[in-house]
Amino acid sequence: MQAPPIQRLVTELGKLPGIGSRTAQRLAFHILRQSDEEAFALSDAIREVKSRIGLCEVCFNLAEGPRCRICLDERRDTALICVVEEPQDVIPIERTHEFRGRYHVLGGALSPIDGVDPEDIKLAELYARVEEGGIREVVLATNPTTTGEATALHVAEELRRRTPDVTVTRLASGLPVGADLEYADEVTLGKALSGRRAL
Amino acid sequence: MQAPPIQRLVTELGKLPGIGSRTAQRLAFHILRQSDEEAFALSDAIREVKSRIGLCEVCFNLAEGPRCRICLDERRDTALICVVEEPQDVIPIERTHEFRGRYHVLGGALSPIDGVDPEDIKLAELYARVEEGGIREVVLATNPTTTGEATALHVAEELRRRTPDVTVTRLASGLPVGADLEYADEVTLGKALSGRRAL
Repeated sequence: MQAPPIQRLVTELGKLPGIGSRTAQRLAFHILRQSDEEAFALSDAIREVKSRIGLCEVCFNLAEGPRCRICLDERRDTALICVVEEPQDVIPIERTHEFRGRYHVLGGALSPIDGVDPEDIKLAELYARVEEGGIREVVLATNPTTTGEATALHVAEELRRRTPDVTVTRLASGLPVGADLEYADEVTLGKALSGRRAL
Repeated sequence: MQAPPIQRLVTELGKLPGIGSRTAQRLAFHILRQSDEEAFALSDAIREVKSRIGLCEVCFNLAEGPRCRICLDERRDTALICVVEEPQDVIPIERTHEFRGRYHVLGGALSPIDGVDPEDIKLAELYARVEEGGIREVVLATNPTTTGEATALHVAEELRRRTPDVTVTRLASGLPVGADLEYADEVTLGKALSGRRAL
């Protein structure tokens, strides 16, 4: 019964995670009540983020140009690499102010059941970075979940074989097992970082 | 630390009702993971809804052209008008399939405290529609809240004075007082419609 443009907006909003059909309806009516400027600002922000954001050629974090802001920042310690699963995992680690190195974003975790094998995530690129030299330590900050732990063990073993002089560490316990790194609080995550242990 | 386009998207998403900063962050990363087609579909839907949807010239419901789909539908009873506060209130009433007349969307409820006076909502337009003739009954379906009730009483009194031959009814009790019409379930709202009482 609603006009097609409204139905379309409700449908598109309902595709977002955690947005059910009632919430999508509510958001759509909010957008209809907004001024054109406000609504267009959201529309443009979506379009812009898709057209201007890609992956950093060094660490595969999200980047506005060929390299992300962290890789471009010369004050960061280039001998230290923190390995995370997803770009959103960089944010809570940055928030702790405990880590001054650079990142390597795998784009997932190893999971044979889901068909995620070593060649499906940025592992070869990580090994190449470390083998290129100048790396003192690799901090494995994958999620403390089954797949995150498996990925950390796999990477640690591989790095020990390829580059035995590089220290490989893992985030300290302190993170509740099964939790999601994206939602960890700063204190817990800071402790986990400062207490990281050799693998 | 995040690239400006990402920050901007998080900010814009965070302006939506019920979307906090963490949720906005989560939605932004979801959009970044989506294909361009999926993300652009949402962006375009927002733009399209704002450029193509306006208010119906008859009932002030949302409409894609000069008139809404309900006012254009010749099978609807033109002698029956249901008065609601907002466009989103039309949806649950339609969902009951109990009402086959047309609507009049006031665009708010009378509230002297909030500075909403009779001339701020579409009351003159309602009286003009009813005074034009051919109307048998006006169903007042404003929310069962203080402002909604006050609006219903004000409209009932005014219509009795202007057009004494037109029956004015109010949604039956059955709706819990203080609730929001937008979220009423079909059964309760259907009962409230079928049991509407004369004012």
